[in-house]
This record gives sequence, C-alpha cells and structure tokens, in this order.
Amino acid sequence: MNAPTMNAQTTATSAVDAPAPYRRAAVIGAGVIGISWAGLFLAHGMDVVVSDPRPGVQEQVLAGLDEIAPALAELGLPAENLSARLRFEADPATAVADADVVQENGPERLPVKQQIWQVVEQAAPAHALLATSTSGIPATAIAEAMRQPERLVVGHPFNPPHLVPLVEIVPGERTSEQTLRRAHAFYTALGKKPQILRKEVPGFVANRLQSALFRECVHLVAEGVVTEAELDEIVTDSIGLRWAAAGPFRTFHLGGGPGGLPHFIQHLGRAMEASWPGLGAPSFDEPTVALLTEQAEQAFGDAPVHELAARRDRAQIALMRALDKTSGARARA
Amino acid sequence: MNAPTMNAQTTATSAVDAPAPYRRAAVIGAGVIGISWAGLFLAHGMDVVVSDPRPGVQEQVLAGLDEIAPALAELGLPAENLSARLRFEADPATAVADADVVQENGPERLPVKQQIWQVVEQAAPAHALLATSTSGIPATAIAEAMRQPERLVVGHPFNPPHLVPLVEIVPGERTSEQTLRRAHAFYTALGKKPQILRKEVPGFVANRLQSALFRECVHLVAEGVVTEAELDEIVTDSIGLRWAAAGPFRTFHLGGGPGGLPHFIQHLGRAMEASWPGLGAPSFDEPTVALLTEQAEQAFGDAPVHELAARRDRAQIALMRALDKTSGARARA
Repeated sequence: MNAPTMNAQTTATSAVDAPAPYRRAAVIGAGVIGISWAGLFLAHGMDVVVSDPRPGVQEQVLAGLDEIAPALAELGLPAENLSARLRFEADPATAVADADVVQENGPERLPVKQQIWQVVEQAAPAHALLATSTSGIPATAIAEAMRQPERLVVGHPFNPPHLVPLVEIVPGERTSEQTLRRAHAFYTALGKKPQILRKEVPGFVANRLQSALFRECVHLVAEGVVTEAELDEIVTDSIGLRWAAAGPFRTFHLGGGPGGLPHFIQHLGRAMEASWPGLGAPSFDEPTVALLTEQAEQAFGDAPVHELAARRDRAQIALMRALDKTSGARARA
Repeated sequence: MNAPTMNAQTTATSAVDAPAPYRRAAVIGAGVIGISWAGLFLAHGMDVVVSDPRPGVQEQVLAGLDEIAPALAELGLPAENLSARLRFEADPATAVADADVVQENGPERLPVKQQIWQVVEQAAPAHALLATSTSGIPATAIAEAMRQPERLVVGHPFNPPHLVPLVEIVPGERTSEQTLRRAHAFYTALGKKPQILRKEVPGFVANRLQSALFRECVHLVAEGVVTEAELDEIVTDSIGLRWAAAGPFRTFHLGGGPGGLPHFIQHLGRAMEASWPGLGAPSFDEPTVALLTEQAEQAFGDAPVHELAARRDRAQIALMRALDKTSGARARA
C-alpha cells in the first residue's frame, strides 16, 4: 500500500497539507455528494469554492459539514473549522477561475452537465483537473460540446465520498492517459482507493454489481422466501463479511481448494451457471412496492434515516479501522 | 443480541459447557465442512463422533482440526486438545446411536443422502436433532424415504462453518415447527447467526445472491471492463464494506434520504429496474474460462490457496471483532 507522501508525517490531530499540486478545489453542485467532497477536500487542507445557484445553499453546506465532521475526525482527519477555507460563488465561471481541480456534482441530466462543462472548461485554468461525479452519464457524452474532451474524466464516488474508499475513474472515448493518471494521483492523495475502468460501460462497475444483487434481493422478498430484515441479516452475516475481507474472485479462488479458481469453475461454477436462468426477474410493480414499503417500515421504522445512517457509518469506520483502511491508519503507516 | 446462556460466564480461555441439551454430536461426512463443524462442536464442549468410510479420514480430520484451531482461539473459544472428546466410527448407525444432534455433510447426491438418512433416522435416539449441511438439495427430497420426515431440516452453513456466522435453516415441506425451533436454538447456542427461511427455494438465499452478483462479475471481466483483481478491489472498497455493516435493503433505505426505501424505489429504483435487462448473461465457455484462469494466476498466484485463505480468515476475524460478532465478544457481553 502506498501511503500518500502528504500524510507521512501527520497525526490524527495535526493539520494536513493539501495534496500538491491540488491546493484549490471548485465543487460544482452542493447536494449530498458535493458537500461530502467539499468536506473531504477541506479536511485535506485544500481551499474550496462551492458553486450552486440554489437559494439557502450556504446554510445547507455548513450544516452538512457539521454533520460529517465527526466521521472525518474518526477517520483520523483534522475536522475543526472546516469552513475557514471555504467560500461560495454562485457563478460557476468565477468559482473555477483559480481552481486546480473541479469536481462537478450537478443534476444527472445530460444537457445540464454539458452546459456546466462548456462554461467550466473555458473558465478554469489550463492545468485544472476536470472530474464529474456522475453515476451514470458517460464522459464521452458530457464532453461532446467541450473543446478539449481529453481533459474530462468521470470520478464517481461511492456515497458518501468522504467515507467509502472507492472512486471509479471512468475514461470517456477521448479522455487522455494523462488525465487518468492525474485523477488517480489526486484521489489517492486524498486517501481514496481509485480504480481506473478499462472501458466506459453503463452504470460502471460497483453499481452494476449492486444492481445485480439487489434484483435477486427484491425477487426473494417478493416471493416470500425471507423478509427484508432477514435478508439483510443473511448478507451481513455471510457474503457481506466475506466481500469486505476478499472480493468475489478471491473468495471463489479460495473456495476452489488447492486448485483455486479454475477448479472452482470446473466443479461448482458449472452448477452455478446452470442456476443463472433460475434467478429472479422481479419488477417494481404496485404489489411489490407495497410489500417493500411495509417491510421497510417494520425493519427500519425505529429511528429516522439520519440516525440509522450515523450508526451504519460508525460501524463502517470500525470495519475500516480493522482493515487499516482509514486515512488515519495510512498516516500512521 | 441474545448472548447464549452457556457462554455468559466464560472467558476466551476457560472451558465452555456444551449447549444443553446437545452434549453429543455425530458428524456424518468429514470433508472440509464436516471437519469445521466437528471443530466448532468440540470447542463448545461437545463430545463428537465422526463417521466417514474413506481411508485415512482420521489423519485428515486431526490435521484439519490443527489447521482451524488458531481461528477458533481467535474467536475466543477454547481450542486446545480438541481431539480429546473426539472419536471415529465408520458405521453411521453406530456413530449416531447416542447422538443428541446429527450434522450430515455427505456427498451432494440425492440417492446418497437419502440412504444416509434412512439409516441415521432408525439408529439415532428419538430426541436427536437431525440436520443436513446440503447447499442445494431440498430437505423435502432427502426426507422422502424417511419415516419421520418432520425431523429433518437443512442446516446450511456458509463455508467455513466455524468462522462465518450464518446458518440457513431451511424447512422441507414436512419439517415440523418444533424441529425448526430446536435447530435455531442449537446453532444460536454455538454462537452462529441462524436464519429460518420461509420457503424451500433452490440455492437457498445467500448462494443465490452470491450467484447473481458473480454472474455480473464474470460478465464485466469477460468484457474487459476490469480485471479480476481490479473488480475484487472495487468490491472490498465499496459494496463489501457496506454490506458487512448494513444489508442491501438497509443500505438503500439510507440511500433514500429522509424518505427511506420507498423514496429510493420511486426515484433511483426505477432507473435500476430499467437497467436490469442490460446486465450481463455470460457463460463459462472456453475463452472465458481461459481468461479467468489466466487472471487468477496473475491475481492470486503469489501464494498457495491455504495461505491466502488464512490471511483472509484473519482479516475476517478482525472484522467480526470490530462488529462484536465473535463468540468471545458474546461471552464478554
């Protein structure tokens, strides 16, 4: 594991230098994802300009930063006075004028993103790294109206960006190698675990896997095999634990005994392949949505979502500590 | 969380009383699963008879117990002299003659299992709990030739049983409520997290979910979007971590904001549903198997499987400690 140089001498409480050469970030769009990115950038010592035309955005961002500060602190990052290096600028061209990196989190609509990037490209410095957080729109499409489409890359975080290590770096057809390398270095310096995808594919990787599994989850609950709460426990007590420690290929490599994955495929993989056509094909029709809604109330109705999320995040930070995946752990390394 | 009474006063090093009223276990079939069950039963203070007609089975079982003893100790269980309360009996009828519980791990072939259970049912005491570890054959089919099919239940562990918390308890059509309750109490007393499925369904739940996700994994690697090693890192750095802390339904409930799962379904679920037909439908054809084999060599060829498995198991025990899921943690509670 390569500890980013910037963290090598820091402790959990000392200030962290900004990831050179990225000292100034512009965060375009300040919903949940944008606020989380802003918090992470600030905790890593960057100056941040937030640009979002919605009324009340300043209050929302400040409240959001207060909410994520404890998690940043638990990750071993300095999380006090985050807003000291934060400013707001409604006009995106002005916001990016001296940015080293632009992270865009606008609405998931192609025309909106195209328009944002036309403006940003022309207003940002020539050296700025240009990344979109889109979870599904290909960089190729967003960059169609750009003069230098080689500069745009998808930097898709797994929500929330300040907490989950993964960032999927997805090139568009014209994204340059240099842009990919710079994006990888930037997110790595922030303590993230970026992965560069080799091809642009709808939904990228993590969300496709999540979607494939959830489809079967919906099927099994709709069929009455288990309830939502029971299925969740089954996952956290088996495959969830497994996949936190080792991914699906490694898991089946180990399941193959001394012969590893090839042995697994020849013996158990064939049976698995034969079972694929029998997997469920549910839909969110009215009875299914009614059932899922009723069971969600039973399973999760005991506390407001933000409280359940805070509990989950604390559990996840404990797991990351156990796996040495926190920024603090890296700083100590 | 209900700490089993038997553990309430124990520490990691003291002896553990057998889970009353289950003092004597018969383990039929001593492959990897059988050895793991035997080790767990012994570590919980039970007397164990292993029955397996294969030559050399004694040496294999003793070597296997030595291999899993460190993990049992790390889980907070007494793991010294496990074989002191172990004996071998090739004839299954003799092996089960005074058993309180029979856990069968024979070959995954229906006629073999039917034959085993015909013999076991008649030779075991009337009070004995009768469970099969089958990962895919319905109890209904296995029990067809039994006189009292209400006594048989599937107790399907996730491999290895001594380490992964989940046990899927799957009733056959004629399994009695009493048998289900007893199986649940037995596995709970062993520190496992049993789940009673409401319906018999091929592959049960955890393996169906695993299969659904792995299908998409194979597709993405076969399409060249990522390598096996990259995909594994994506999973451990995102959905794996998430699902160790919260299952898929809870995760999307939290992803729905204040409106929870219903809001998630209405907004993001519809897009997910639309994406389901676009998920991959790979097969283990020759080029795919060749690619998977080559990448497995690159990704996992640095150490023998048993060494990689030991590393993974250590990581998983660290995760279970972080989540307070070890027997030791329960004993301390």
